[in-house]
Amino acid sequence: MEAAASEDAKPVIRIAAICGSLRKASFNRGLIRAAIAICEEFITDMKIDYIDVEGLPFYNMDLEENGSFPWPVEEFRKKIREADGVLFASPEYNYSVSPLLKNAIDWGSRPPNAWADKGAAIVSAGGSSAGARMQYHLRQIGVFLDLHFINKPELIIPAFQPPQKFNRSGDLIDLEMRERLKKLLMSLHAFVLRLR
Amino acid sequence: MEAAASEDAKPVIRIAAICGSLRKASFNRGLIRAAIAICEEFITDMKIDYIDVEGLPFYNMDLEENGSFPWPVEEFRKKIREADGVLFASPEYNYSVSPLLKNAIDWGSRPPNAWADKGAAIVSAGGSSAGARMQYHLRQIGVFLDLHFINKPELIIPAFQPPQKFNRSGDLIDLEMRERLKKLLMSLHAFVLRLR
Amino acid sequence: MEAAASEDAKPVIRIAAICGSLRKASFNRGLIRAAIAICEEFITDMKIDYIDVEGLPFYNMDLEENGSFPWPVEEFRKKIREADGVLFASPEYNYSVSPLLKNAIDWGSRPPNAWADKGAAIVSAGGSSAGARMQYHLRQIGVFLDLHFINKPELIIPAFQPPQKFNRSGDLIDLEMRERLKKLLMSLHAFVLRLR
Amino acid sequence: MEAAASEDAKPVIRIAAICGSLRKASFNRGLIRAAIAICEEFITDMKIDYIDVEGLPFYNMDLEENGSFPWPVEEFRKKIREADGVLFASPEYNYSVSPLLKNAIDWGSRPPNAWADKGAAIVSAGGSSAGARMQYHLRQIGVFLDLHFINKPELIIPAFQPPQKFNRSGDLIDLEMRERLKKLLMSLHAFVLRLR
Repeated sequence: MEAAASEDAKPVIRIAAICGSLRKASFNRGLIRAAIAICEEFITDMKIDYIDVEGLPFYNMDLEENGSFPWPVEEFRKKIREADGVLFASPEYNYSVSPLLKNAIDWGSRPPNAWADKGAAIVSAGGSSAGARMQYHLRQIGVFLDLHFINKPELIIPAFQPPQKFNRSGDLIDLEMRERLKKLLMSLHAFVLRLR
Repeated sequence: MEAAASEDAKPVIRIAAICGSLRKASFNRGLIRAAIAICEEFITDMKIDYIDVEGLPFYNMDLEENGSFPWPVEEFRKKIREADGVLFASPEYNYSVSPLLKNAIDWGSRPPNAWADKGAAIVSAGGSSAGARMQYHLRQIGVFLDLHFINKPELIIPAFQPPQKFNRSGDLIDLEMRERLKKLLMSLHAFVLRLR
Repeated sequence: MEAAASEDAKPVIRIAAICGSLRKASFNRGLIRAAIAICEEFITDMKIDYIDVEGLPFYNMDLEENGSFPWPVEEFRKKIREADGVLFASPEYNYSVSPLLKNAIDWGSRPPNAWADKGAAIVSAGGSSAGARMQYHLRQIGVFLDLHFINKPELIIPAFQPPQKFNRSGDLIDLEMRERLKKLLMSLHAFVLRLR
Repeated sequence: MEAAASEDAKPVIRIAAICGSLRKASFNRGLIRAAIAICEEFITDMKIDYIDVEGLPFYNMDLEENGSFPWPVEEFRKKIREADGVLFASPEYNYSVSPLLKNAIDWGSRPPNAWADKGAAIVSAGGSSAGARMQYHLRQIGVFLDLHFINKPELIIPAFQPPQKFNRSGDLIDLEMRERLKKLLMSLHAFVLRLR
């Protein structure tokens, strides 16, 4: 009975979630917290792990020695390798990806490429275009990483348009956006299963 | 006499040159060294200043306080503001810009945008596509930065195709590529003058 | 007399305006009509000429013979060559440019490239993203065409969001958008003068 | 015996192949002929059908009436709907897609979207960049079309670099490129099966 129960509880799909912002009250980190909660409640065979990328040094090929990496990079790469899929939550800076996000991507891509052949999805919150331009740059990056992005739904949250989407701590408080995030996660869930 | 001397010495156009790689023997930093030498010899009213961007922290809006920035960021922004144009020399990582380059760009863009209304050019050296995909991402970024990129010539140096383009220190040793770099610099020179 | 005549004759800046839609009640052709009217009233030394691109055959290199083109293509290329700048008004189809617009662009680009070295601006009206993705594709195309796009303002009109932006004939009836179009035209005007 | 033969002959996967060029001796149409031959010989459960897109009118929403399309468009849409996957073979014009290709794409995308949820791959042959820039535009277009492109291998054939790649009729005659095309088709085959 207990064995069966633990069998039931076993998360089938592991998703590594990466935030492209360093802000304490980052909306995009708030989206990851919301995604974790949504999975716990509604998509119980998919577990989202928040992967901190703050401690990684700037990418520098000189730091690689005989295929080994600085310690925090090794740790990071291991976590990505173990995941079945990836959730990127990131602001758009100057019509493209944030340096923090790109840095994690570049370290992960060094041979053997830790991202290879995983399903992936993107969410972004911010002002004006709210991330659309960043998302298409990230998709082009994903071609070389060999990530398989879901096509639909796309989720771009205009953080400063009423009604209020996030509280001051960066928590997602808008129910419609929460519903759209849930749909994106269900699409990612289905796509990762389909790619198996 | 002194006035005349200082008149002679006065460089009319100042170009800030930024390298997107941290590698000691970076080809792209080598391109900047070559560009500096070319200007000294052939384009004497344009001076290229190498701007080190290694010491900047990862972009984080929380580090801004009442419109002031961490000290190395302030220094960096001042150098960009004082330039008439910008030369980007950068590798392509995973079909896009390097995190180091993007980080410098993002700090410079914070209000008041230090890049605004300057002429600009891109050079890149590397393997396979050698930077083409990076260059178009950088041009899109430049729309928001309000940079005016020259259209032609484009310079993308396939670093690993014969004949040898760079020595082990990253110095450009190929005469044809040096000639093409010179043409790009003359185009940047003409465009900066035209934008005045 | 002669002075007066030359005064009359003097439109200083000629802008070729191209619409990317074939719809009779196209919003984007409406934007060109509004731009023509704005120039007549406020920017009297800039004249916008609507260039019809409907009659051009699909681009096919086999139709070129010894550097000559089918008659409607020759006519079209002549009009572009004579312009000082270009205004593109186009919807976004499937996250990119419309085939009608791309077709005109490709015919114009054949050697000798009719677009070379002109100032340019883009406006777009439509649903959802309303053209942002198309605009960045068009800017990349412009690198090879050697067009110099203004960076700011960017104008992307969400045609289906209240208040009503266009009437059923496709005429721009929203005053705020008309004001923003005027600012874009003034920016194009200033940039074309600056490039001289 | 006959039943067994027809069983053998049954193609499991149908791929619609679209050429972006109208040139009679188009290299890219030659790539489709080569792909058809490769499948007949080596990937016998995948059949490539060349879909002619020359007869389609320029996309114009006014030509749609109550959800019905001009006759050649209906025919075209039917063929796309019936396919399991898509092979795009197209030149790059001015750093982006050809108008002929974009036109077929846009007609196919009208609701109900004929491209939805199919696997896809891109090949391109041409001068200079040989199609890289076009391929990334096409991939962005594919997000809205809901196409699932393979990531690897990417195939971009520099048609004018020695050794000779194509004969004067546009037939692929280079064995290395034929081998790379075969690998791309095997990757598409595997990805379409995986998406089922």
